[in-house]
Amino acid sequence: MDLRDYIRDVEDFPKPGVGFKDITPLLDSKEALKESLKRFLELIEDKEINKVVAMESRGFFFGPLIAYEIGAGFIPVRKPGKLPFTTYKQEYDLEYGTDVLEMHIDAISPGDKVLIHDDVLATGGTAEAVVKLVERAGGEVVQLDFLIDLTFLNGKSKLEGYEVNSLIQY
Amino acid sequence: MDLRDYIRDVEDFPKPGVGFKDITPLLDSKEALKESLKRFLELIEDKEINKVVAMESRGFFFGPLIAYEIGAGFIPVRKPGKLPFTTYKQEYDLEYGTDVLEMHIDAISPGDKVLIHDDVLATGGTAEAVVKLVERAGGEVVQLDFLIDLTFLNGKSKLEGYEVNSLIQY
Repeated sequence: MDLRDYIRDVEDFPKPGVGFKDITPLLDSKEALKESLKRFLELIEDKEINKVVAMESRGFFFGPLIAYEIGAGFIPVRKPGKLPFTTYKQEYDLEYGTDVLEMHIDAISPGDKVLIHDDVLATGGTAEAVVKLVERAGGEVVQLDFLIDLTFLNGKSKLEGYEVNSLIQY
Repeated sequence: MDLRDYIRDVEDFPKPGVGFKDITPLLDSKEALKESLKRFLELIEDKEINKVVAMESRGFFFGPLIAYEIGAGFIPVRKPGKLPFTTYKQEYDLEYGTDVLEMHIDAISPGDKVLIHDDVLATGGTAEAVVKLVERAGGEVVQLDFLIDLTFLNGKSKLEGYEVNSLIQY
């Protein structure tokens, strides 16, 4: 199965001149959902991982599924003001300006073995911010697994020294 | 297992005087995650369901898990401007003013049997909006399954005639 067949190109979204990779056809197909999860699990092999951390909102589609299947806990990283308890905050750069991601301070403990997941690796800015959140809490980043890597944006360059995987590359 | 043990009460969130039910400890426990999913599947029994629809963002935690386990497709309902393709839009009332939810126009087809999921049933406004989106697309709402029902807000009153279930009631 070529998972690319389940990714829809939407031109000029979210703004003119930008092409968007729409993953909703993949989520809507039970076969593609199953195949994607199978491949995510193959990336993990027999590595010891006890926490899966994923970013709001589209990282939440596969994050809990991966966590459930490998018997790990699931940790959401969210935009400012969404998590109700005390949080670590990490700033990261946008094209224009900066934004912040938050993670609950009790989500990760020293020694936790962490898989970081998001739907798309673009410039790597948010992924880098999540690595910092996990490590500030004492966790060890075992790998970062994305559904899609927009390789022409070279997001991996922000994640040197880490294992970075993806199911689909453009 | 009492799933309430994995729900954290956070006072004065998102604003003074409001108590918030924080589900992140439940997601962070592999045992509670497993038990919750088991109970969600028991609510479905042998009903024929081929689409699971869930609301941004916290409905995304369990929505894809339920879809995967029963072999259904997963459909996200999102806030305005987040879905890239053409959408149906449905307005709903907030405490002050209104907001809009969107669903892709090709997400549900006539005859689809739909389970609607969200983490919390509060006043029922968003759930009612999602029912309207599904039915406008020709789908049949088989049941609405929530992790938590804040029964004192009487959200079920907006969903009369539908099967409404929850794992935890306050």
